[in-house]
Amino acid sequence: MTETSPSFPKDLIDLDDLTPGQITCVLDAAENFKEVSEREIKKVPTLRGKLVVIFFHENSTRTRLSFEVAAKRLSADTVALSASGSSLAKGESLLDTARNIEAMRPDALVIRHGASGVPGFLARRLKFPVLNAGDGAHAHPTQALLDMLTLREVKGRLEGLKVAIIGDIAHSRVARSNMIGLVKMGGRVAVAGPPSMLAPELAEIYGVEVYARPEPALEGADAVMMLRIQLERQSGALFPGAREYARVYGLNRERMKLAKDDAIILHPGPVNQGVELTPDLYDDERSVILPQVTNGVAVRMALLCLLIDNPDKE
Amino acid sequence: MTETSPSFPKDLIDLDDLTPGQITCVLDAAENFKEVSEREIKKVPTLRGKLVVIFFHENSTRTRLSFEVAAKRLSADTVALSASGSSLAKGESLLDTARNIEAMRPDALVIRHGASGVPGFLARRLKFPVLNAGDGAHAHPTQALLDMLTLREVKGRLEGLKVAIIGDIAHSRVARSNMIGLVKMGGRVAVAGPPSMLAPELAEIYGVEVYARPEPALEGADAVMMLRIQLERQSGALFPGAREYARVYGLNRERMKLAKDDAIILHPGPVNQGVELTPDLYDDERSVILPQVTNGVAVRMALLCLLIDNPDKE
Amino acid sequence: MTETSPSFPKDLIDLDDLTPGQITCVLDAAENFKEVSEREIKKVPTLRGKLVVIFFHENSTRTRLSFEVAAKRLSADTVALSASGSSLAKGESLLDTARNIEAMRPDALVIRHGASGVPGFLARRLKFPVLNAGDGAHAHPTQALLDMLTLREVKGRLEGLKVAIIGDIAHSRVARSNMIGLVKMGGRVAVAGPPSMLAPELAEIYGVEVYARPEPALEGADAVMMLRIQLERQSGALFPGAREYARVYGLNRERMKLAKDDAIILHPGPVNQGVELTPDLYDDERSVILPQVTNGVAVRMALLCLLIDNPDKE
Repeated sequence: MTETSPSFPKDLIDLDDLTPGQITCVLDAAENFKEVSEREIKKVPTLRGKLVVIFFHENSTRTRLSFEVAAKRLSADTVALSASGSSLAKGESLLDTARNIEAMRPDALVIRHGASGVPGFLARRLKFPVLNAGDGAHAHPTQALLDMLTLREVKGRLEGLKVAIIGDIAHSRVARSNMIGLVKMGGRVAVAGPPSMLAPELAEIYGVEVYARPEPALEGADAVMMLRIQLERQSGALFPGAREYARVYGLNRERMKLAKDDAIILHPGPVNQGVELTPDLYDDERSVILPQVTNGVAVRMALLCLLIDNPDKE
Repeated sequence: MTETSPSFPKDLIDLDDLTPGQITCVLDAAENFKEVSEREIKKVPTLRGKLVVIFFHENSTRTRLSFEVAAKRLSADTVALSASGSSLAKGESLLDTARNIEAMRPDALVIRHGASGVPGFLARRLKFPVLNAGDGAHAHPTQALLDMLTLREVKGRLEGLKVAIIGDIAHSRVARSNMIGLVKMGGRVAVAGPPSMLAPELAEIYGVEVYARPEPALEGADAVMMLRIQLERQSGALFPGAREYARVYGLNRERMKLAKDDAIILHPGPVNQGVELTPDLYDDERSVILPQVTNGVAVRMALLCLLIDNPDKE
Repeated sequence: MTETSPSFPKDLIDLDDLTPGQITCVLDAAENFKEVSEREIKKVPTLRGKLVVIFFHENSTRTRLSFEVAAKRLSADTVALSASGSSLAKGESLLDTARNIEAMRPDALVIRHGASGVPGFLARRLKFPVLNAGDGAHAHPTQALLDMLTLREVKGRLEGLKVAIIGDIAHSRVARSNMIGLVKMGGRVAVAGPPSMLAPELAEIYGVEVYARPEPALEGADAVMMLRIQLERQSGALFPGAREYARVYGLNRERMKLAKDDAIILHPGPVNQGVELTPDLYDDERSVILPQVTNGVAVRMALLCLLIDNPDKE
């Protein structure tokens, strides 16, 4: 399996780092690993004796848990670190903390940070693999890969698919990584959101279609990805309120009719039900929101293997 | 062992869920597992490759640790989740969090929550086993089972034993689960506490004797279970103060003479020494407070096995 | 290996507890364990089925992580406990918490506490091994042992070495444990620091040389150990400020010339770069600050083994 990716990179910071062939390789490996989570004994010895350090600076259930579960299903050991309770509270720089971790000979660092660029900054200075679990508004490559795995699983391919991404495009690391990944794999991406959440440059930079209203983005879409509105971070600056947002941009049965009949609904979670989409759609058979979570474990298992058992690392 | 419980329930929310035969089955299994914790290598492979999610919304040393140790001694993997640091801090509903966890294919959820009914609510909506580690003033079934294991171990039986439970009966999940369990097993339960901590309906609902003073409850008792006074939660509303409480309801050598000569003393911990009981009784040979903790690990090992390796689950 | 330490103590509270022969035994064992962290599969089955409880009351990255990694590389299980989230938040005494932990049959307790004497207090009351991971201004024996391992590794011996320790000698558990250990092993220790951070009694109690200025301590030293200035704890009482401190006591290239040509630089971390030492020295080839961290894992592996597999315990 790793033979097909002759130069898999040391780190995964964003999907820029991977070729289409390598993305396919990750998705194929993930597809194989899915079966492990369905076994009676959900464990393979692949990474026995390896140490994965999980370092989250931001709140997270799903992603942190998903990485922990992925590591344990591969028989790796995990140690967790959070900003509070660490030496960072003593004023140590993040790089010093990371170099100290490195001196304990871990096999991979999974890091989430509120500031864009932190995982990449560390990756360039550390000798062992760094896996970006989300940094600021920059990138969330494992989310994009699990989204792509889910799409490919249901649709049989990524090439030629039209995917609508709706919400706060400009500030979303999920949108950014998906735009890069989907376009790279031959997909067609149409994004839509309030003017305060869009940037006209997106079209050019990422090769996507940009709309101020959701309707043209939804038109003929194979999949609709609704982004989370960060209600807890908004001071009302970017949009008037949750109700207004739901009325104009939220997904509901009516609006969903614009997409293809067999279109599926994705959301990176946690969902604000009644805001990004109506509760009936969350439970609709077209919703793949929970299968996305299941695929997340498989994608992270694949990436941990590919980075730790990387035949290309010196 | 599991053969003798032909329809063990999917979840354990309270002792209502178990028949007397099933309670005996849990206690027998726990008795067998006790030996594992005394070995040189304190580990059996029973739950290898299984994942136990431990989700505590309230402070706890003993119970959380006890479940973690139980899971690890069975070779299961554990992942921990707390309210802070989870997506709940982003406003996600508890059910959404639980369904997301479910999508990662865990084998059991151990949950403690401040609100009565939460574990049962989740259990009805999730396909995998839910184990209540204490919910509000509702139930604490693993505590009651470890209490019963301790009683049975010392007294050789549960049937016909008189157990006095003294303290804040009305607001105690420990008292409630013990009343249900002990009466179900043929025990005789006498409860006592200040009027603000009793409810006359208890007699009828649970089939127990209710007294306003500890003396008649202690009279001829085989065991005395002192409940923790929640000093940290009291605003002085339920009783005048710790000293007054100790004088009227606290256990001391004098009062202990009312019980049988070979009566034992239980407490779910943490103990407020000098309030619920005098320090000399905590260390008295009749005290089984620390053996209760040892038994807690064994009871939780038994329950994890019975729920996860449940032959009745589809 | 353990044969050479016929009466290894039940606990490790400070280096007072160990004879020179036992210290050598720990360092030899650690040297052997270093190799495990460099393997492809970084794990040995030595402590399989053993439970290590890690109880940190103070912030720490390095030490907590180092113990967790050490335990996992020996195949032990670990459970972590912090002050918040534990029953201590319910007002339970530390001893009660520890006795409850004991009742769950752990194999070792690793404890860090802000109050001097706490690990020793618990060790005398618990039947299982207690390992001091730092208590107040009292002792930090695993740090001193990893410092000694690093020194011995580079210099080939400890006897006859001159080690300068510079900083807040009077309030540093690192300094205290190192003074005891190094003098015990035949080293010569010279300490220096501002008057508010020294005590004239040190010379007599520990058999070290005490200087008010760094220069005479550095003179001809084989190694320089810079202590961390607790900027976060200082209210300006002990020294005028970080800049003034750096100018008079900080290590720089110029001052380093006083030491031997092949002198090495140690620091327990986290380093305040530009305060205790200039950033160029942190990255200098004479700096062994990161090798110290690597050695920390090995020393803790050795100690966990020697305490848990102690042939002398009844």
